[in-house]
Amino acid sequence: MNVDLLIYNGTILTVNSKFDIIENGFICVKNGKLERIESCGQKEVFPEATEVIDAKGCIVMPGLVNAHTHLPMTLFRGLADDQPLTVWLDHIFPAESNHIHSESVRYGTLLACAEMILSGTTTCCDGYFLEDEVAGAVIDSGMRAVLGQGIIDFPAPGVPNPSDNVKTAEKFIRKWQDMTPTVTPSVFCHSPYTCSADTLKKAKKAADSKGVLFQIHVAETRNEWDQTRLEHRTTPVRHLDRLGILDENTLLVHTIWVDSEDIEVIARREARICVTTESEMKLASGIAPVPDFLRSGITVGLGTDGCASNNNLDLFQEMDLTAKLHKVCTLDPTVMGARAVLEMATIGGAKAIGLDKEIGSLEPGKQADMIIIDMNKPHLVPMYDPVSHLVYTVRGSDIRDVVISGRMILKDRKILTLDLSDILESVSEIAECIKKTNRRFI
Amino acid sequence: MNVDLLIYNGTILTVNSKFDIIENGFICVKNGKLERIESCGQKEVFPEATEVIDAKGCIVMPGLVNAHTHLPMTLFRGLADDQPLTVWLDHIFPAESNHIHSESVRYGTLLACAEMILSGTTTCCDGYFLEDEVAGAVIDSGMRAVLGQGIIDFPAPGVPNPSDNVKTAEKFIRKWQDMTPTVTPSVFCHSPYTCSADTLKKAKKAADSKGVLFQIHVAETRNEWDQTRLEHRTTPVRHLDRLGILDENTLLVHTIWVDSEDIEVIARREARICVTTESEMKLASGIAPVPDFLRSGITVGLGTDGCASNNNLDLFQEMDLTAKLHKVCTLDPTVMGARAVLEMATIGGAKAIGLDKEIGSLEPGKQADMIIIDMNKPHLVPMYDPVSHLVYTVRGSDIRDVVISGRMILKDRKILTLDLSDILESVSEIAECIKKTNRRFI
Repeated sequence: MNVDLLIYNGTILTVNSKFDIIENGFICVKNGKLERIESCGQKEVFPEATEVIDAKGCIVMPGLVNAHTHLPMTLFRGLADDQPLTVWLDHIFPAESNHIHSESVRYGTLLACAEMILSGTTTCCDGYFLEDEVAGAVIDSGMRAVLGQGIIDFPAPGVPNPSDNVKTAEKFIRKWQDMTPTVTPSVFCHSPYTCSADTLKKAKKAADSKGVLFQIHVAETRNEWDQTRLEHRTTPVRHLDRLGILDENTLLVHTIWVDSEDIEVIARREARICVTTESEMKLASGIAPVPDFLRSGITVGLGTDGCASNNNLDLFQEMDLTAKLHKVCTLDPTVMGARAVLEMATIGGAKAIGLDKEIGSLEPGKQADMIIIDMNKPHLVPMYDPVSHLVYTVRGSDIRDVVISGRMILKDRKILTLDLSDILESVSEIAECIKKTNRRFI
Repeated sequence: MNVDLLIYNGTILTVNSKFDIIENGFICVKNGKLERIESCGQKEVFPEATEVIDAKGCIVMPGLVNAHTHLPMTLFRGLADDQPLTVWLDHIFPAESNHIHSESVRYGTLLACAEMILSGTTTCCDGYFLEDEVAGAVIDSGMRAVLGQGIIDFPAPGVPNPSDNVKTAEKFIRKWQDMTPTVTPSVFCHSPYTCSADTLKKAKKAADSKGVLFQIHVAETRNEWDQTRLEHRTTPVRHLDRLGILDENTLLVHTIWVDSEDIEVIARREARICVTTESEMKLASGIAPVPDFLRSGITVGLGTDGCASNNNLDLFQEMDLTAKLHKVCTLDPTVMGARAVLEMATIGGAKAIGLDKEIGSLEPGKQADMIIIDMNKPHLVPMYDPVSHLVYTVRGSDIRDVVISGRMILKDRKILTLDLSDILESVSEIAECIKKTNRRFI
């Protein structure tokens, strides 16, 4: 029987429920899906395949899942670092209102997709404005994504009148639901402090009526915690719970300033969490109690956040920092082991964004979203444990090949779907315009 | 007038005392030293040069200084992760006593040099055993190094009888002092809890008599702090001070468990500090109060520590983590800005290891130790601020060229001095032997 793609000779990290690692394995892909994942054995005769990849000396694993980002914000990468939050916003808000339009959103997203593909991310969950443009660029790149049209009670790019915000999000869902298998629409409410109770409830209702994911930033800063307690006499998380927002289709992002009752509520409602460790460290927001979340059985994914605060989209670095930060903060080196962190960046993220039936592990029947990492490099030798290597040693730049839905997207570090020089040139031109209106440069 | 090497068209980050950045500059190198560093200007006629590098779209900056590492420990990369310190030592100590010999030290060091060159480090400060072999390998690689023969009151590789430890270190200094300009000998005492007061004093005297750097791990763990207070009725740092160890030729490594009086003593004695953020996070040792060190005027360098605990030698990642860790721990995003961290990894490290007259910045008369980074890549575009990009976005794998003492060591990511496939193969063979005696694998 013929298959479309055969990968052989590699060490296969399945991230299935048994966390099986197949030392010398092969994978067959047909019609975009994983068909066989097995050990090569002694005298294996492989099926005929249209495309064949020799993964000798490589690890083959599920593509990483970036569970929270703002793709077009690559345009603001490094625009205002080492600043207090208020100063940072003073740079970012004017840049957004002056320079975020259809064309810039498209190029910012294409750049983000290029960076993600080159660093082993095959799926992302985005929240931004002008999300139709984001969708178009993501489709062109060949990536898989959950995309949320932004809702905020202020004028925003593409939504000058805030009273249209939920309606615009509903229109986005109608357009993209069932349009193409790689794009899943979603609702992205900015936060409980930028959306009224009424907006939050309407937005959640809109998401529920279409059965899509509801994303929201919550409990990100000490200031939000203090203000919410003053205004609503409760915590940010319990404020959302009172509004009926928390359930298994809700993704809480950041969730740093929480108490034990908040964690209990999140666990009981089966809401999901995404932490964005690097961005939270760089903005000095605080440290989310991830080990407590995991102990409470909460599904946790990893995200990079947008490039204005991170300043990259590299989930390998995100895994490394997440493991190390929680070890040093608890003074316990056994906390957040490599396997736990790797699961957060794959199957955990897939669960967090509602796609775990399709992606997040290499198992027959699932989508063929895979990355291949060449381990024969000075910083990756010797290798005693592939899992610890993936978290503590591998860099995004070690990804050799990327396959999404069975389609080769990256081959020998060349992106097959995008015109990289056009993207780099166009983004540089947009950045020159941004400089002309930024107070650092005028 | 002819020069040996001309680099033009790049953005030159000098890291001089004014922190000058030359937008479109050129650099002339003659006899291994920097001769001119200037702006290209409108109609610049460059001098004739034997070798010419076009650095268009690149940043040219001083090679990074890794102020603390144990080079041969690349052999144990990832051998025992996510373990309590006692279990980790149960893996590392037997591996060292069974597998550290001249040949393995040579190959472990060659691998380390390859990894450092490929990630932009041009100088390192090492402490280990069989240091003659380390020196030979470092010279073959073309790198610059301060190398300390290890002193510990236990049998060690090459020093079966601990009573020979200081004598062996003295012999090492005699052999390497003035032998070759790129290798500077030093003394490396393991720690105040593995060396007696007598050993520490003798070792410091030996270092002083030859005018070389004295390196020592100190105040690394909570346990060391508790034990020292119990045994010596003082802190680890003040214990060393009472023994007369602290002065401007002493490099204190880790220095995590310190109080305000310790910081005052270190500042008054002008002793130097090296922090190894990633290793300290991963082993959950604690967080050194680096912002307090800098405020007290103490010279601070950055190190990676050995690969058994890090698990890599990438100083770009080390800069990124150091900046972010201190921001989140103080809840202040302005702490440890990009410039401060970049200075720690260049001129700060050079001062910490006593080489700041020769390296650490690009200034006429200094050694031509430089790295060239190609910035035209998806994760590095756009660029509003080269300094913040170097800390928060650039990865070791972005280094294109490396020059040490005016000699091309890395060109278009190819190492010109080492046979990489021989090194990778030999280290893999040694690792197979290590596996055969490690309890994880038998």
